[in-house]
Amino acid sequence: MSGFAQRLHQAVLRKQTAACVGLDPRFAELPQAVVRGAEARCRGTRREIVAAAYEEFCFRIIDVVAPLVPGVKPQSAFFEEAGPEGVNVLARVIRKARDAGLIVVCDAKRGDIGPTAEAYAAAYLAGEDPDAAPFAADAVTVNPYLGRDTLEPFVRLATERGAGVYVLTRTSNPGAGTFQDRVSEGQPMYRHVAETVESLACLTAGSEPYGAVGAVVGATYPRELTELRTAIPHVLLLVPGYGTQGGQAADVAGAFDAKGFGALVNNARGINFAHSREPYRSQFGEANWEQAVEAATKEMIAQLAAHTPAGKLQSSSR
Amino acid sequence: MSGFAQRLHQAVLRKQTAACVGLDPRFAELPQAVVRGAEARCRGTRREIVAAAYEEFCFRIIDVVAPLVPGVKPQSAFFEEAGPEGVNVLARVIRKARDAGLIVVCDAKRGDIGPTAEAYAAAYLAGEDPDAAPFAADAVTVNPYLGRDTLEPFVRLATERGAGVYVLTRTSNPGAGTFQDRVSEGQPMYRHVAETVESLACLTAGSEPYGAVGAVVGATYPRELTELRTAIPHVLLLVPGYGTQGGQAADVAGAFDAKGFGALVNNARGINFAHSREPYRSQFGEANWEQAVEAATKEMIAQLAAHTPAGKLQSSSR
Repeated sequence: MSGFAQRLHQAVLRKQTAACVGLDPRFAELPQAVVRGAEARCRGTRREIVAAAYEEFCFRIIDVVAPLVPGVKPQSAFFEEAGPEGVNVLARVIRKARDAGLIVVCDAKRGDIGPTAEAYAAAYLAGEDPDAAPFAADAVTVNPYLGRDTLEPFVRLATERGAGVYVLTRTSNPGAGTFQDRVSEGQPMYRHVAETVESLACLTAGSEPYGAVGAVVGATYPRELTELRTAIPHVLLLVPGYGTQGGQAADVAGAFDAKGFGALVNNARGINFAHSREPYRSQFGEANWEQAVEAATKEMIAQLAAHTPAGKLQSSSR
Repeated sequence: MSGFAQRLHQAVLRKQTAACVGLDPRFAELPQAVVRGAEARCRGTRREIVAAAYEEFCFRIIDVVAPLVPGVKPQSAFFEEAGPEGVNVLARVIRKARDAGLIVVCDAKRGDIGPTAEAYAAAYLAGEDPDAAPFAADAVTVNPYLGRDTLEPFVRLATERGAGVYVLTRTSNPGAGTFQDRVSEGQPMYRHVAETVESLACLTAGSEPYGAVGAVVGATYPRELTELRTAIPHVLLLVPGYGTQGGQAADVAGAFDAKGFGALVNNARGINFAHSREPYRSQFGEANWEQAVEAATKEMIAQLAAHTPAGKLQSSSR
């Protein structure tokens, strides 16, 4: 397998789960203790306080989940909303997660043409060596709309550095179909994107089961997940939308191959803010929000395992 | 017109041109004096030196072009490649350009679902008040692949703040057609995107000619430019790819409406690095790179004017 697929699968084997924890700091939903701590520590601007709160929140989540899951997916948008200070924290959060042994998928959904795509790839694809890029992720999400030639710079650098590229294919939002479902030559656009992704994945896979190129397919579209797992067999799937967006363990079962590999299932809000929903609100309350994060992560892992046939996750090859 | 269209057109009228200068700092192409200056001033890491060089380079270009053109378009990717330090410089470059009276289109090509799209909008869409967002742009470029519901948060905030949103429609790269040209229900995907953009533009235009929503259509596809100007009459066009990517003034003539409004034409490399191409290399050399920037900007303005019928750019309404 490609360097990235190999490392991802080793991590999945080690943790015995394909659960990924999203890091989606949203200021209005942070535990008050985290906000007050940042206000007390940081005597800067409002944005500096927000960034400091994001750092503490994400660092503490990483400490809780690092022993439990193979990877985390920080959502760049929330850090960018806090300005340059927030982006600085994003870089530190990625680094902290790498240091904790986690695979980091930076959810930045970048995409641009030619040399500009190269710049984005260089910014986010550190791959095996965390010092190789300022935002030291193992993989990054990218948008295919601009065309195959705009994906290639990401794929080239990913291959060089043992990094991964997840191409948006079928997203988890209600309006995903506006363009993704438009039928052309007998199949929806997302299937054409999927074919391009499969072709790029094959180029990087060699004789291994998976390449360095993955596809983002929302947990909220179980039929499409199952269909794509078969149609694009060399493509690693990244499955967001688990939990609060409505996707459940049964919905994502089809994302896995016969050995239980081939997909990473992401839950962000359902874990990050577990303290604000039942049963965790009553059980732990906001004061013990980290215990709520831990319990919600373990719950997700158990649910995924219940939908993964026994005997899986025993070897790294199909 | 929407707040953004109104401000853009006032700027175009004031400068009597629709030329926009891209800010695409690429380290390998920077004038040596800029690099040596940054090295001498900045005793930090390599990335800090790169960021310092980008700041000086962009600030000096802004000083040169602010009296000549209505707007600038910083390309986020190059700043992100320099890490958090580079992103901090991006925020400062945007602010400097605003302070110089320029319209700033941040070319970030963002896009995500629901609340995440809101976070990106809040990060980049300052609109009329530069203090309203950390990256204080007048407008931002966004990617439509995720669907109409993912464009709406940008459009909503843009309308609130007098900002603009340019949706990638037909990009300037050679492989743009991979998905954009796929035919569905009798027309290519980019036309379906264009229809969505027109519908969003109309919602924000009221009884004015243009709304707050624009489309990115590459200068390298003149036929599509002309076709789209007619097909989506309420949509402001942003036309990249002028100059080094191959688009010429005759190619972009079709982007303008009968009054010479409705489009902003961007040239990045051809102006940023004018000192390294003829006739400017011989005329000014690298030592006088700012004079080369000025001459190349004036050349572009003259070329655009030659392809804009006389009597245009006299009033702000059609």
